[in-house]
Amino acid sequence: MLPFQHDEMLRAALIEDAPWGDASALFIDEHATFDAKLVARVAGRLAGITLWARAFTLVDPTLSVDIALRDGHPFDAGAVLGQVSGSARSILRAERVALNLAQRMSGIATLTARYVSAVAGTGVRITDTRKTTPGLRAWERAAVRAGGGHNHRYSLSDAVMIKDNHLAAMGVTTPKAVTEALLRLRSTLPHTTAIEVEVDRLDQLKAVLAADVDVIMLDNFSNDDLRTGVAMIGGRSLVEASGGITLARVRSVAETGVDLISVGALTQAAAALDLGLDVDEPGAAHAG
Amino acid sequence: MLPFQHDEMLRAALIEDAPWGDASALFIDEHATFDAKLVARVAGRLAGITLWARAFTLVDPTLSVDIALRDGHPFDAGAVLGQVSGSARSILRAERVALNLAQRMSGIATLTARYVSAVAGTGVRITDTRKTTPGLRAWERAAVRAGGGHNHRYSLSDAVMIKDNHLAAMGVTTPKAVTEALLRLRSTLPHTTAIEVEVDRLDQLKAVLAADVDVIMLDNFSNDDLRTGVAMIGGRSLVEASGGITLARVRSVAETGVDLISVGALTQAAAALDLGLDVDEPGAAHAG
Amino acid sequence: MLPFQHDEMLRAALIEDAPWGDASALFIDEHATFDAKLVARVAGRLAGITLWARAFTLVDPTLSVDIALRDGHPFDAGAVLGQVSGSARSILRAERVALNLAQRMSGIATLTARYVSAVAGTGVRITDTRKTTPGLRAWERAAVRAGGGHNHRYSLSDAVMIKDNHLAAMGVTTPKAVTEALLRLRSTLPHTTAIEVEVDRLDQLKAVLAADVDVIMLDNFSNDDLRTGVAMIGGRSLVEASGGITLARVRSVAETGVDLISVGALTQAAAALDLGLDVDEPGAAHAG
Amino acid sequence: MLPFQHDEMLRAALIEDAPWGDASALFIDEHATFDAKLVARVAGRLAGITLWARAFTLVDPTLSVDIALRDGHPFDAGAVLGQVSGSARSILRAERVALNLAQRMSGIATLTARYVSAVAGTGVRITDTRKTTPGLRAWERAAVRAGGGHNHRYSLSDAVMIKDNHLAAMGVTTPKAVTEALLRLRSTLPHTTAIEVEVDRLDQLKAVLAADVDVIMLDNFSNDDLRTGVAMIGGRSLVEASGGITLARVRSVAETGVDLISVGALTQAAAALDLGLDVDEPGAAHAG
Amino acid sequence: MLPFQHDEMLRAALIEDAPWGDASALFIDEHATFDAKLVARVAGRLAGITLWARAFTLVDPTLSVDIALRDGHPFDAGAVLGQVSGSARSILRAERVALNLAQRMSGIATLTARYVSAVAGTGVRITDTRKTTPGLRAWERAAVRAGGGHNHRYSLSDAVMIKDNHLAAMGVTTPKAVTEALLRLRSTLPHTTAIEVEVDRLDQLKAVLAADVDVIMLDNFSNDDLRTGVAMIGGRSLVEASGGITLARVRSVAETGVDLISVGALTQAAAALDLGLDVDEPGAAHAG
Amino acid sequence: MLPFQHDEMLRAALIEDAPWGDASALFIDEHATFDAKLVARVAGRLAGITLWARAFTLVDPTLSVDIALRDGHPFDAGAVLGQVSGSARSILRAERVALNLAQRMSGIATLTARYVSAVAGTGVRITDTRKTTPGLRAWERAAVRAGGGHNHRYSLSDAVMIKDNHLAAMGVTTPKAVTEALLRLRSTLPHTTAIEVEVDRLDQLKAVLAADVDVIMLDNFSNDDLRTGVAMIGGRSLVEASGGITLARVRSVAETGVDLISVGALTQAAAALDLGLDVDEPGAAHAG
Repeated sequence: MLPFQHDEMLRAALIEDAPWGDASALFIDEHATFDAKLVARVAGRLAGITLWARAFTLVDPTLSVDIALRDGHPFDAGAVLGQVSGSARSILRAERVALNLAQRMSGIATLTARYVSAVAGTGVRITDTRKTTPGLRAWERAAVRAGGGHNHRYSLSDAVMIKDNHLAAMGVTTPKAVTEALLRLRSTLPHTTAIEVEVDRLDQLKAVLAADVDVIMLDNFSNDDLRTGVAMIGGRSLVEASGGITLARVRSVAETGVDLISVGALTQAAAALDLGLDVDEPGAAHAG
Repeated sequence: MLPFQHDEMLRAALIEDAPWGDASALFIDEHATFDAKLVARVAGRLAGITLWARAFTLVDPTLSVDIALRDGHPFDAGAVLGQVSGSARSILRAERVALNLAQRMSGIATLTARYVSAVAGTGVRITDTRKTTPGLRAWERAAVRAGGGHNHRYSLSDAVMIKDNHLAAMGVTTPKAVTEALLRLRSTLPHTTAIEVEVDRLDQLKAVLAADVDVIMLDNFSNDDLRTGVAMIGGRSLVEASGGITLARVRSVAETGVDLISVGALTQAAAALDLGLDVDEPGAAHAG
Repeated sequence: MLPFQHDEMLRAALIEDAPWGDASALFIDEHATFDAKLVARVAGRLAGITLWARAFTLVDPTLSVDIALRDGHPFDAGAVLGQVSGSARSILRAERVALNLAQRMSGIATLTARYVSAVAGTGVRITDTRKTTPGLRAWERAAVRAGGGHNHRYSLSDAVMIKDNHLAAMGVTTPKAVTEALLRLRSTLPHTTAIEVEVDRLDQLKAVLAADVDVIMLDNFSNDDLRTGVAMIGGRSLVEASGGITLARVRSVAETGVDLISVGALTQAAAALDLGLDVDEPGAAHAG
Repeated sequence: MLPFQHDEMLRAALIEDAPWGDASALFIDEHATFDAKLVARVAGRLAGITLWARAFTLVDPTLSVDIALRDGHPFDAGAVLGQVSGSARSILRAERVALNLAQRMSGIATLTARYVSAVAGTGVRITDTRKTTPGLRAWERAAVRAGGGHNHRYSLSDAVMIKDNHLAAMGVTTPKAVTEALLRLRSTLPHTTAIEVEVDRLDQLKAVLAADVDVIMLDNFSNDDLRTGVAMIGGRSLVEASGGITLARVRSVAETGVDLISVGALTQAAAALDLGLDVDEPGAAHAG
Repeated sequence: MLPFQHDEMLRAALIEDAPWGDASALFIDEHATFDAKLVARVAGRLAGITLWARAFTLVDPTLSVDIALRDGHPFDAGAVLGQVSGSARSILRAERVALNLAQRMSGIATLTARYVSAVAGTGVRITDTRKTTPGLRAWERAAVRAGGGHNHRYSLSDAVMIKDNHLAAMGVTTPKAVTEALLRLRSTLPHTTAIEVEVDRLDQLKAVLAADVDVIMLDNFSNDDLRTGVAMIGGRSLVEASGGITLARVRSVAETGVDLISVGALTQAAAALDLGLDVDEPGAAHAG
Repeated sequence: MLPFQHDEMLRAALIEDAPWGDASALFIDEHATFDAKLVARVAGRLAGITLWARAFTLVDPTLSVDIALRDGHPFDAGAVLGQVSGSARSILRAERVALNLAQRMSGIATLTARYVSAVAGTGVRITDTRKTTPGLRAWERAAVRAGGGHNHRYSLSDAVMIKDNHLAAMGVTTPKAVTEALLRLRSTLPHTTAIEVEVDRLDQLKAVLAADVDVIMLDNFSNDDLRTGVAMIGGRSLVEASGGITLARVRSVAETGVDLISVGALTQAAAALDLGLDVDEPGAAHAG
């Protein structure tokens, strides 16, 4: 995304956090300055560091901000991830928004990295879903990539996913009708739009395979059924496993031969990571 | 907030989720209709139900939506929380945004309710913080209230919180200087703006008490120190406990005599609650 | 797209056309009403009729608007395409914006229909390109569909097109490097994102085929070379012909066996179609 | 217009063309750079060159852009009109939007220049109309000026045009009523607002002349009738000819003695001019 | 202007007055209702009544609002100008914004009516200027019309006013140069754009008259000089008097024979008129 | 507020004042430059000087602007408050918006300073109200501070004011019910939200005192009643006097012992202060 797209989102967040100014600023001399560090209280995987930095310079372009680690890198508790110095009023004005974003995004990256690590060596992709926070999808997807995961379709507009509710809505019940409906869809969609179909039971697979779709999602399947499904599909479509797949189970799912595992929890269950802004020892702070 | 403020946020979320339309809609007859229920997969506390409902009618005012339970009510797994019927295309267009919001807000309400329940009978308030999701503060605060919690200040604009970083920025070190700086602040702030001061050690209390502030936050105190602090303050200010207070510990903190306990985890560590949209049995779905 | 997305665009157009009101309205009694018809001055294919209608009701919800023909239908000179009645001030306020849109969109649909008709029976798709008017892409794409054409990718975000400039930028020169770069791309892109590669000469084909991409565009090829290319590709990718393909030549291109022909002229060279708003005979107009 | 007004429109166009980033960018090394030239494939008149240039620096302020020719200048096929160098990713991100605007605006300027040239020496103005693309009026009007044409009123707000539909709406039929209605209008309009009246037949002229309006438009008149009209008006108002005036006929219309000829085709029938962005020979491209 | 343009401005005002809701609303039962009247505390001229009414229905479409008097009408102290009934919470949410607008606009209308009344019978227009409140120009101009005044040009875009600073900027000093510069301007401006020239001394008049402009403003002239100026101009241009013309002096200025008197004070010195919202006697208020 | 919040408001004002450019600019050579001074025509108190300056650099960053006096400072007639130099076109484009803001804000500051001066030595605060111009509240509040006044609550969201209409809406009539309702309110409001209660008669005081609110407003009280009220309250709450308090009376009100006097007239009755932009003597102006 373009810098002005990020800025627009950050500006909205900054206004939300102080619509008509920081009342506490009156406490601080307008010429006071300090240096502060972004410090990790726990180990994790970094994401959102450029948002963290940009929040400060949007508030005040005279602030000096350094990024010590780039998105996608792991860090230990105590690590210094970045540094900001300049006007105390400006730093305190941006602090909370900057932290909220870095904490949330790093939380997602850290959880993603655990999933990715759990399937290491299998060649299976861990992907996100559309279960993202309204307004933050672009950033949360970047956090998933920072954790080593892959992105799924961005939105309803760029790829098709046919689910049980779609079939129910159409009253489509026979396998032949399913195949025909999928072929009709292909004939009207742009040729660059991928078609993925969600399948809930093995006996639905044949109708879908007949339509030659790009991806088949096996939803809430046991590992045994996943293995059977992978065999039936035989490489004619990509295979995605989905449905409440926990960190404990994810390795065994990856070993069934699926190509992708999508995990809603990456963006729905990641707690914010504990990062803090530490002002340098009192001696460094002064009315400049 | 006014209806058009909510609508504006929902519209942005709906556009984010399908900037140029739902490609999957081509699969569905434009006259097909169905009925669907919002069903709880787990027990919890409800929040965000009006957002859930409004997402549908914003997409299509001809949809019929019923709310079965109001925000703030507890429910069991399997409970039906609401119902929507009408155009299949429209329901599927709004579904994900509607669910994302109801799941996230109910997750916050459910976690808040656990904290509130843990301090039942003590008269202590559980409050949120400014650690909210950028853009969603108004909604997340409503979710905290739905869980029985209270709200803290909304933003940097409406109340003052003086923290260690403020003192460091000012190079304020002597107790007398702290008192004087706080009194100066009071003399310039609007008379309706409350002043809260964060205190890290008991020996800082005296200077703050001399300034007669509205609220004193005891940050990262042991329960013993909290008790001592409460006694020293002696009702002259409200007392807020803060700093990584877990569900396990919150009761003992409440029993120290503090007035408020603020918990960042309410909005930073609440996982989305598992709610789903179930289409009524196939027979009910049809090309209308 | 959702109704409010269209409304937002129409509102901007209406404000552009009279930022602080219609000065001519002072000439007209505020209670005067009339009936008017949207009449085709020439034959063509209709598009934009719902925008035409919506412009009126956005200006004044009490206007009564009827659509006589739907987008996608052909009409003869003299055909009545729609009707509007009600406040004279309101109709004249919306008239120009409504016409500008219907004329432009019908111009695109009409030109598209000529291309589609020229390739009738070949099974080849005529598609649009990203050469659309800034701000109007969604509407112009709908006009192409109304003319019987298909849409190409919507934007840089939803599908990949690798062109000569991409290869130049990478300094990629050997076939092996091309293949490798394409495979690397595939390994990072979301699994739902299609890859299309532009090829300028037949000798570039082999490297692209080795990467197994979704679509290959043969750019500015002679019909002979197109035939050769189609044979070399042998169904392993979709084949798109592109590059200044005129109405005169399009049939012969379609007969080379390509799957798609993309035509920038659909949106860059279509003149607005001559449609007018005729007020019913004077007797029908009156101060109501 | 102010720079930020142009930027706002360009930003919207850039977002439309890649709402969540350029997927193809993954193909290109983030440090790769190249130089590219804006080259005319055909002769024409330039317009939109500052938009072309600004699209690049909006995407990436580190790009270096040179403008070789200013708006309003003619050029031959093969002419280099501008140059851009810097990050390959950034140039490719902005390329299509930049070209779409320069092509469209230069198409309008080129067509306008043909009309202006056809009436050379007569002192007659060629003007645009309100038949512009929604959202692009300011730019298209600038393109008309670049072609040597003049602008008509900007919108319904800044000047009055009374047409047949206005008279029909008022049920105004007698010449005296027309005169009176026009005088009444003059008495309420701001004194700086010009009044123009459209006349369809010579016998309507007398009533309009009696009201002493600023401009009289003779709509769809034969050249003979135009001459008669000009004589009747006798310099008391400016005279504008209008109504499907082709390039073939425009000279003869200009010679009837009218002051202005307004041509909707300038903005409704101008095809985009063929301009392209040529990357300098491969050797110049490299991972920087 | 269109309803949605007014709504957008009102929405911004309502959000400014309670960005995250009315905290006082908690005091009131959500089902409580009351009736309230808009009452004039002093006599005056009404303006802004539709804004007053619309503020309420924007907040809550179920409120019932009646307008007792239309804009442009005079009223006595004690007059009831409108009425609103329904949800107490909703009425109190909109009250201040509704009053602020009606008070300010009626203040302008009332002051304008005094000026208009002072020149009654002379046929001279009292007009506003561009000295309006940022963001409220359209509303303040309507208030001037409600007071019986006329509007001047809306903005820098729709008419030209050449002032001393323009001449200074051009280093234009000789009368001949002034005339030529004005004629050059006429030859490039749209033919519908009026030219007005400000003149500070009688000896500047001749050069301006030679250029045949639409309006001549005599700035800060004595009444004697105004009379001389009017005679010199002799009907060839409209004549506008301007420059700190007070209510006490305005009649004598009007009698010098000028056509227009522009008065910045209409929008810069009008105090808000005292209007209040009176809730009906306690008995009428109740929890519904 | 943040710089971009101010810029957004200024941009809207600049667009309002010339939506599609300054038509008069054609009169001026594009390279002409001049120097101009902001000069006070009358004595007063300065506010809005940074807005004045920013309007110029928003229009054209190459303009050079100097601020000679800061907000909050008094000045005499003839004082030079600032200076701008550079492109004549750019200066004239921004001039009116810059002046409108500086004049209005300085008018408010000047009136406020008179009130503040009238109560000098009493220790009483003069405060503003919510009777501000829609869209300009933040700027008008800053102007009040520049005049030495204090701000009241910003909006309905950040502090509570219970008025007669609130009590009427609740049908609350007995003192006990008033006390209980206020205590209930306190128990739900955030602990940082101040409660102020408006009291119209002395006999209402007791019920309010029993609820221990933060501020009590004595509305439309005689000075005698104010003195009695102050005594009854006895320092348990802050006391605010309100209700049409004129400059003539304000000193006597301050001497009754109240803490605050709120004055709606500060923002509703302040006339714009007469400031002008004087171009340096002709010799300084030239085509650069």
